[in-house]
Amino acid sequence: MGAVYVVGMGPGGLPHLTLRAMEVLKAADAIVGYTRYVELIAPLTADKEIFSTGMTREIERCEKAIALAREGKTVAMVSSGDAGIYGMAGLVMQVAMRRGEPVPIEVIPGVPSFVSAAAILGAPLMHDFASISLSDLLTDWEKIEGRLLAAAKADFVIVLYNPKSGKRTEGLKKAVSIIAAHREGNTPVGIVRNATREGEDAVITTLSGFHLYYDKIDMLTIVIVGNSTTFTHEHRMITPRGYKGV
Amino acid sequence: MGAVYVVGMGPGGLPHLTLRAMEVLKAADAIVGYTRYVELIAPLTADKEIFSTGMTREIERCEKAIALAREGKTVAMVSSGDAGIYGMAGLVMQVAMRRGEPVPIEVIPGVPSFVSAAAILGAPLMHDFASISLSDLLTDWEKIEGRLLAAAKADFVIVLYNPKSGKRTEGLKKAVSIIAAHREGNTPVGIVRNATREGEDAVITTLSGFHLYYDKIDMLTIVIVGNSTTFTHEHRMITPRGYKGV
Repeated sequence: MGAVYVVGMGPGGLPHLTLRAMEVLKAADAIVGYTRYVELIAPLTADKEIFSTGMTREIERCEKAIALAREGKTVAMVSSGDAGIYGMAGLVMQVAMRRGEPVPIEVIPGVPSFVSAAAILGAPLMHDFASISLSDLLTDWEKIEGRLLAAAKADFVIVLYNPKSGKRTEGLKKAVSIIAAHREGNTPVGIVRNATREGEDAVITTLSGFHLYYDKIDMLTIVIVGNSTTFTHEHRMITPRGYKGV
Repeated sequence: MGAVYVVGMGPGGLPHLTLRAMEVLKAADAIVGYTRYVELIAPLTADKEIFSTGMTREIERCEKAIALAREGKTVAMVSSGDAGIYGMAGLVMQVAMRRGEPVPIEVIPGVPSFVSAAAILGAPLMHDFASISLSDLLTDWEKIEGRLLAAAKADFVIVLYNPKSGKRTEGLKKAVSIIAAHREGNTPVGIVRNATREGEDAVITTLSGFHLYYDKIDMLTIVIVGNSTTFTHEHRMITPRGYKGV
């Protein structure tokens, strides 16, 4: 029996891989992943069996990884960011379980996309935060709305994943208006597209000014809304931790 | 003028550093950090100026890093996990700003402790989550309680940072009872101490069984409480993302 390693590659390309992730990729017999992510690590995988597919074929990739491991191979399933945050880690465990095909699975943690987005913006996540995906493909919109309202009222810094896609454009407007009903208009909002990848683009605006950037936002964008204490200084978004004397 | 790089080292020791973090540490003239973390990277820093202090002397470390950078040095301030999540990134920016001593500051993201804790437990963070620190040193307890209640009601997976210290022991009990009022007693709870470090210890229990592990929890522990869909399978804690057909 082989094994499946679900490897978080970090936000983009080789520089953000951990040494442990690098080691696992080098030792793997086979690499399974979404085509774009497999390409990012091509320098490490030249001599390996590759199974890559486009977006929306997640379950097929899990089945393939499990089958290869059951043939005795060491398989690395690659995921952008961290594989455990809206990623493939849970899915491959579920697929192995439901199919009755147990196989050793280990998750190799990576730098999540929202963490690298925060680093580009400054330090918006120094205090309690809530992460909410706006994709209603797999979640009822009422549940998403309930979480937005709860997070807004309780003054969490709010991270929005999957804010907007080609087809799904209204959710983000609703989300921002729910949050804006409970925060000042001048609350800082950071928008980061392609964090640490080619085409990286970051801007800091406010809840009131957010609509100006609406068209630039897509599925590769992370939005971070500050809490009641977050401020902007010299193009940096900072949420104070609360130390006295600073 | 030099610069300050605030480097997230990941959860413990060299294997979880990113390549970029490694590069920055190697290139630095000076290393500033909490003594224990500076020791973890000793193999990389033999020839460098070191300024390390114990816990609670965070502001002094920031002042030193800024002073060294203003003398022209390249300074790496090291932080465990990610420097932007309850870390030093925001503090050093605030200290530079308040003292009127501007200096280039860049945050190098790392794998946060809660992300490596999640990887050890399985895949508990596959859906929306809220991170709450139970330390009331810098935050009013009422605010913490409000966030616990909001997150519990809105069915977030809940990550508890700084759950308990030697002096602060009652907050965690209160926190768990607030959450338990809104979730089933069999909701999985993961407890990870020293994630990926020497002395790593992880257990999966339930909200009802949590009190049995209370004494083992300290400031180096991360607690992750599942949402209403989280389940346990073969010592793994999994929150489904919601894909059909699995």
